[in-house]
Amino acid sequence: MDSARPAPRRRGRPGHDLDAVLAAAVRLFNAHGYDATSMFDVAETLGITKSTLYHHVSGKEQLLAMAVDRAVDGLFEAAARVRDEGTTATVRLEELIRRSVLVLAERLEFVTLLLRVRGNTAVEQHALARRREFDALVTELVKQAQAEGGIRADVDPATAARLLFGMVNSLAEWYRPERGRPEAIAATVVRLAFDGLRTIDTTDDQRRQQEQ
Amino acid sequence: MDSARPAPRRRGRPGHDLDAVLAAAVRLFNAHGYDATSMFDVAETLGITKSTLYHHVSGKEQLLAMAVDRAVDGLFEAAARVRDEGTTATVRLEELIRRSVLVLAERLEFVTLLLRVRGNTAVEQHALARRREFDALVTELVKQAQAEGGIRADVDPATAARLLFGMVNSLAEWYRPERGRPEAIAATVVRLAFDGLRTIDTTDDQRRQQEQ
Repeated sequence: MDSARPAPRRRGRPGHDLDAVLAAAVRLFNAHGYDATSMFDVAETLGITKSTLYHHVSGKEQLLAMAVDRAVDGLFEAAARVRDEGTTATVRLEELIRRSVLVLAERLEFVTLLLRVRGNTAVEQHALARRREFDALVTELVKQAQAEGGIRADVDPATAARLLFGMVNSLAEWYRPERGRPEAIAATVVRLAFDGLRTIDTTDDQRRQQEQ
Repeated sequence: MDSARPAPRRRGRPGHDLDAVLAAAVRLFNAHGYDATSMFDVAETLGITKSTLYHHVSGKEQLLAMAVDRAVDGLFEAAARVRDEGTTATVRLEELIRRSVLVLAERLEFVTLLLRVRGNTAVEQHALARRREFDALVTELVKQAQAEGGIRADVDPATAARLLFGMVNSLAEWYRPERGRPEAIAATVVRLAFDGLRTIDTTDDQRRQQEQ
């Protein structure tokens, strides 16, 4: 029963532990829904008073804003690092998918929250706008990779981008550490997306058939 | 403004239009959440009285049960049809992915609801159990396809199954008729998943590099 209600801690350390506050809030938002979670619930989980909690944050909406930012920032940081690598667009796209899986695994609860945002408030609208911006960036990278001949031209770039991140984002639904190291999952996503599940021999057979 | 509040219809036709009742309920559940939707809301949307609504269904929970069943049944029907085809496991897996995309596109609102179910009630627990049963069926098919050498053995079957349905299920987030015919989207999913995004030439280059 101890794990259900953690012992009071961090009391009297206002200004500290914003990360702990954020983590607790996100866990509650994901478990019970944002609307159903109060600042009192967050304070209680942390074993601090509501007034101490308000030393950290201005309110529930700020918690939501910080939480979804942490998820989206992770994805944009991955995109920025990939952009600076100066390789082909195809390699950059692969790298972005790989790094995005790592971001998902590392910030799983934050991304889970982000993916549930429906745009009911200004904070949620902002989060959705940043998600769209990220989608556009991925679509653009797919287009560039197609233009340089690295990935097949017979798929619609926006659809490919959505399906790639359909795979990546699905981690929020099923990823748990015991299901594999993030690096191994990331490698599987990249292999499936870029090389396909089909064995090379089968592909060769098909190609031969097509050529006949 | 007419479209926001449809004119009363179907009044006095109890026993009819269960499909219309279900469609209206699912739309409300998806837009406002299951908990936030009342039987009165459903009746009002349909322009019928609550008592007429209760001619159709015993209550909100039955609406949820029927709605998630419609989604899961679609997937199991696809699996049953594929099972009877008597081809290789690899072709059956491809076919199951293709047909699942079509089920998603056709029953989009039902699947959207299913994917949001978290297991808070007996109905939701049942839906989650059927989802797990379907996942196990897909994982088994991946294993068979690997055993017959049709798909690569270097991916974990359960992870592959989750990623494949990560792509398929992502349609619930982004699919709209103007984004492509379901058959075209299904073809793209299968192409991406089985043959990969990489152009054949690049794969050849890599294979040559690996052989050197």
